[in-house]
Amino acid sequence: MPEYNVGILGATGAVGQKFIRLLQNHPWFKIAALGASSRSAGKSYAEAANWIESAELPSSVADIVVKECTAKNFSDVDFVFSGLDASVAGDIELAFATAGIPVISNAKNFRTDPTVPLLIPEVNPDHIQLIDTQTFTKDRSGWIVTNPNCVAVPLTTSLKPLHDHYGIKSVILTSMQAISGAGYPGVPSLDILGNVIPHIGGEESKIHAEPLKLLGTLINGKLTHASFPVQATATRVPVINGHMLSVTVELENKPASEDEVIERYKNWVSPIKELDLPSAPDFPIYYHNSPFYPQPRLHADSEQGMRTSVGKMRKSNVLDLSYIAMAHNTVRGAAGGAILNAELLVRKEYL
Amino acid sequence: MPEYNVGILGATGAVGQKFIRLLQNHPWFKIAALGASSRSAGKSYAEAANWIESAELPSSVADIVVKECTAKNFSDVDFVFSGLDASVAGDIELAFATAGIPVISNAKNFRTDPTVPLLIPEVNPDHIQLIDTQTFTKDRSGWIVTNPNCVAVPLTTSLKPLHDHYGIKSVILTSMQAISGAGYPGVPSLDILGNVIPHIGGEESKIHAEPLKLLGTLINGKLTHASFPVQATATRVPVINGHMLSVTVELENKPASEDEVIERYKNWVSPIKELDLPSAPDFPIYYHNSPFYPQPRLHADSEQGMRTSVGKMRKSNVLDLSYIAMAHNTVRGAAGGAILNAELLVRKEYL
Amino acid sequence: MPEYNVGILGATGAVGQKFIRLLQNHPWFKIAALGASSRSAGKSYAEAANWIESAELPSSVADIVVKECTAKNFSDVDFVFSGLDASVAGDIELAFATAGIPVISNAKNFRTDPTVPLLIPEVNPDHIQLIDTQTFTKDRSGWIVTNPNCVAVPLTTSLKPLHDHYGIKSVILTSMQAISGAGYPGVPSLDILGNVIPHIGGEESKIHAEPLKLLGTLINGKLTHASFPVQATATRVPVINGHMLSVTVELENKPASEDEVIERYKNWVSPIKELDLPSAPDFPIYYHNSPFYPQPRLHADSEQGMRTSVGKMRKSNVLDLSYIAMAHNTVRGAAGGAILNAELLVRKEYL
Amino acid sequence: MPEYNVGILGATGAVGQKFIRLLQNHPWFKIAALGASSRSAGKSYAEAANWIESAELPSSVADIVVKECTAKNFSDVDFVFSGLDASVAGDIELAFATAGIPVISNAKNFRTDPTVPLLIPEVNPDHIQLIDTQTFTKDRSGWIVTNPNCVAVPLTTSLKPLHDHYGIKSVILTSMQAISGAGYPGVPSLDILGNVIPHIGGEESKIHAEPLKLLGTLINGKLTHASFPVQATATRVPVINGHMLSVTVELENKPASEDEVIERYKNWVSPIKELDLPSAPDFPIYYHNSPFYPQPRLHADSEQGMRTSVGKMRKSNVLDLSYIAMAHNTVRGAAGGAILNAELLVRKEYL
Repeated sequence: MPEYNVGILGATGAVGQKFIRLLQNHPWFKIAALGASSRSAGKSYAEAANWIESAELPSSVADIVVKECTAKNFSDVDFVFSGLDASVAGDIELAFATAGIPVISNAKNFRTDPTVPLLIPEVNPDHIQLIDTQTFTKDRSGWIVTNPNCVAVPLTTSLKPLHDHYGIKSVILTSMQAISGAGYPGVPSLDILGNVIPHIGGEESKIHAEPLKLLGTLINGKLTHASFPVQATATRVPVINGHMLSVTVELENKPASEDEVIERYKNWVSPIKELDLPSAPDFPIYYHNSPFYPQPRLHADSEQGMRTSVGKMRKSNVLDLSYIAMAHNTVRGAAGGAILNAELLVRKEYL
Repeated sequence: MPEYNVGILGATGAVGQKFIRLLQNHPWFKIAALGASSRSAGKSYAEAANWIESAELPSSVADIVVKECTAKNFSDVDFVFSGLDASVAGDIELAFATAGIPVISNAKNFRTDPTVPLLIPEVNPDHIQLIDTQTFTKDRSGWIVTNPNCVAVPLTTSLKPLHDHYGIKSVILTSMQAISGAGYPGVPSLDILGNVIPHIGGEESKIHAEPLKLLGTLINGKLTHASFPVQATATRVPVINGHMLSVTVELENKPASEDEVIERYKNWVSPIKELDLPSAPDFPIYYHNSPFYPQPRLHADSEQGMRTSVGKMRKSNVLDLSYIAMAHNTVRGAAGGAILNAELLVRKEYL
Repeated sequence: MPEYNVGILGATGAVGQKFIRLLQNHPWFKIAALGASSRSAGKSYAEAANWIESAELPSSVADIVVKECTAKNFSDVDFVFSGLDASVAGDIELAFATAGIPVISNAKNFRTDPTVPLLIPEVNPDHIQLIDTQTFTKDRSGWIVTNPNCVAVPLTTSLKPLHDHYGIKSVILTSMQAISGAGYPGVPSLDILGNVIPHIGGEESKIHAEPLKLLGTLINGKLTHASFPVQATATRVPVINGHMLSVTVELENKPASEDEVIERYKNWVSPIKELDLPSAPDFPIYYHNSPFYPQPRLHADSEQGMRTSVGKMRKSNVLDLSYIAMAHNTVRGAAGGAILNAELLVRKEYL
Repeated sequence: MPEYNVGILGATGAVGQKFIRLLQNHPWFKIAALGASSRSAGKSYAEAANWIESAELPSSVADIVVKECTAKNFSDVDFVFSGLDASVAGDIELAFATAGIPVISNAKNFRTDPTVPLLIPEVNPDHIQLIDTQTFTKDRSGWIVTNPNCVAVPLTTSLKPLHDHYGIKSVILTSMQAISGAGYPGVPSLDILGNVIPHIGGEESKIHAEPLKLLGTLINGKLTHASFPVQATATRVPVINGHMLSVTVELENKPASEDEVIERYKNWVSPIKELDLPSAPDFPIYYHNSPFYPQPRLHADSEQGMRTSVGKMRKSNVLDLSYIAMAHNTVRGAAGGAILNAELLVRKEYL
């Protein structure tokens, strides 16, 4: 396998730090350049970043001099991961793509662009073909791929087997989201210690829209979104990592029993299983038999944080099924998801 | 107002302690006797109880000698509050009622008995007439009244104005329940610190059933339950007091807008307002305008813990309305609710 | 009792909000003016402040228009409470005092000024005479009084009976401080949830110095500080309110037993007891017999947060005594302490 | 390296579970037998244990049938680890040793026995010679080695370089201990959420005594304990794993500066470094330069939980030095420490 030189945009932020930690010892990707705001540019990464990961800052990264996020500064990398804040991601990612540098982004800015894949490798790997419709550069050397919102990931992953077998008619969910989802400094401790906050600004509209693109159908290079309504109540709970979802779904076709559905989860095979991607978990969906599982503190780190855990499946007496889903929000729901996207794109020879 | 001598059954437990604290300085009710298991009988209350309330143990109570829960031991009281555990409440409460001592119970054992009122004074005060159908004693001197499960209280209270104006067709909810709901020692800290547990054993079936009895119609002394389906997912969160509910409802008749619904909450008048009960809050339902409210740590204690707080009302794109409700689980949802029940029964001359 | 019109400087901050809440229904002091930065000036208080107290914003305060903190803007008040940040408190408080407006300050800026009383009414009420040595105005109409750091309050209060009877030779302590001590937004939840932080910038030097001034001796208008060394380790713990101290002291004269010391605490009489100040607690020092007490969550609110709780007194096998002290950091250790200072100054006719 | 068959006594408890997790994939030790109370005997481990580790129960262990803790039942193992509760450990461990089975114990029962090594391999590896003085069996085939209390481990490890260079005269410390130290179910969440408890029953006497044995001198097979006084205040904080200590020490000889002391920590070389034990950390003592470090949530897991982290070293103005120490209480302070003890005993050919 050739080695790829990768850049990280937004490297000093919470998502950027997670990229750095997850890329340590990555078999294919080598951190070659780090980008941040002009305030950090010129400093060593150790100086520029307020390192908040519990694992120590890798010494190989500490001395890298941070650059401003211009395409010229990153001309030597094979592609970039973007952990940029949405307030600047739009312009910068566009500039990189236009300059011929592929962008694997965690930002929301291009997620709704009809030519940009919103990608969960185990859910919609075929959507990467949308790249061929992008026109950022004439030679298609520059392009953009995005990963979904951190709630949309476990939601859509857990809906996928249901959608394939029964057809989703509607979805109601309440999310209980970890504080790490708000970045750093993020949620003040006075707001959340011993408390629940019943609202997260801007979150619910993403949860309503993204599953429909992810479960959309690509025909002749054109993506038709799925069309069921989703209604989310996003809450914040005093948990470090792991977004938990309480989901109720209405189906087109009715399963015979909850056991039938549980079996479908247990027997589900990931469409990218045979690609053997380095960051792919053995069980992209793992079903827990105990109704008290999954729990964020116990299971968010399962399989290096790349698993979606599901449990408590039962028939609903209002709609059809009700269950719990949970995934690590800053790994599977952010940096780890983007890295898996890049791995898929390598195997599919887009990189 | 005459003063009532009251007994407390299960006085050493978490609910019993809350009764004691809430009855301090009560204008009508005076603690005259305390009952617990044979293990505690004969000891002073200070010795027998592991006091866990933050307010100090009232000195007037500390020296009361705890008795076994037999009707004979409580022959001098006007009525008893029961905070007994469900494992023993059935037999003991029956014995008291049969012996002619009214029982205002927080236990679940008689909640489903068709002759026993399941009572929230602001929701179904007329249901107290069911007492007249009870046959525990020939002279009707002994009877039982119960208060609902701690989630059923804010759920049904918040549903009441919707049911009256629009008719409830179905309800889906996720509860985020405080640790105090599990009593003491209750939830191990290793299980819940920085975590969410997605299941509470035995809780969901109560949430499914109790609102239907509470919103039932009493005609000629016979109660017809409401008949819509409720589907609950009960979770435990690291919060001390205050159960929060994320509720989605389907209605028979559709409101014009969410603002119309909010106005109904704001203009809602409690049916017991003019009775001026000592423990009745000014706002049995309080609507918060901020979508970030209510929060358990900020609002569970509002109006001495007797208020149901509601917020974040919005139209649902799956069913009809979605909102947040919250109430103090051990006050409004347990001991405080029982005391308000007793106050109503005094005013209505059952006591 | 005449009513005083008071102003609050720094009214939108965490300490300012606590002043507002504590002055609600105060029998002597009426909030007449609110000051904040130019950014807030001209707005109603409800608009300007991000209200974080759990009690609702008093409606009588919500509509007060916030002013900039200039003496001219506060010419109608009898005195001001200052909850200003240290970065601006020095200049503003000086300007107010110079303009003839008494300042009762929670800021640290003037605490070390030899003419400014650093005051805990139960510890060193006589120090208010230092006011007579102040020269901010010729007619002594303007002056400044300060209250101590939030750790220094329970530390010095609990040391006072020991110092009087035995003489303090040295003090070693570890503080476990609540998050509310850092203001709002203050401590990020990602830093403190399920964690302890072993350092609080700038805190230890205040804890080393302030007890010596507080326990100093005033002779002929000149204050001689006490002279024992104090060594503090200040840590942050995930507690909302209540700083707990683990204290070990060396004494000049040795007590016969720990019981002798406990009796001194229990029999200790506050020097301001007979003044009957509205905010003075019945037990400025309360000794708990259980070694598991005091605890911040159970006892910080005791007596409206104005009590210093002490417990676990025992002989030390290294120095002489070891014990636990605890007080509410934003009430007794900040706004409540300042209000009690003002009450003393009223009774002593400085106001 | 030959493989050792090991038994675990008390296998279903919290410490026993930690043994099982840490021995997964151990290069030398293979779990061959599991012992618990008669209540569990005869069940598979999966049935008998309420598995609370976040890592999944290893499938190789799930089906092992649990036995009662009799020597006969463990005749096939090379030695046993004991995670038994102190209430039963004394008798059972004695029976095993007498029957010729070496016992590596985490229980406190034999820690004070003058012939039983209380062992931290990096602190007092030579103490294993005490085994030769044990008389449980005539042929010395059966013997007992213990590891210290979970606070004594980081305390004594951090004192060791100071004791060697300067001589310890006295120690005062306050511990802030994690909830996992109380086992399961352990600390009720209602007691500790958002709180600190200033006392842990029975803990302080162990902290006073064990460092003196650990730092004792072995001459001609006889151990002379160190003789300085230690005074501890043990508190419980809402942290999952990692006991933090705030330590102040008095020294016989004075260091020139705190930097000199810090250098001694940084240059300290473990006496067992060259033995290359599988569980030995690279840095048994790791000094953090930031005064805000170490923190339990960030650093308890460093080097698989086997490191003692130290920070905030400074001169004390009362005694001589003050610093913070922290280690993972159930790994380094319990099961992990016992496993390292066993590894040392293998290398030294006691096993």
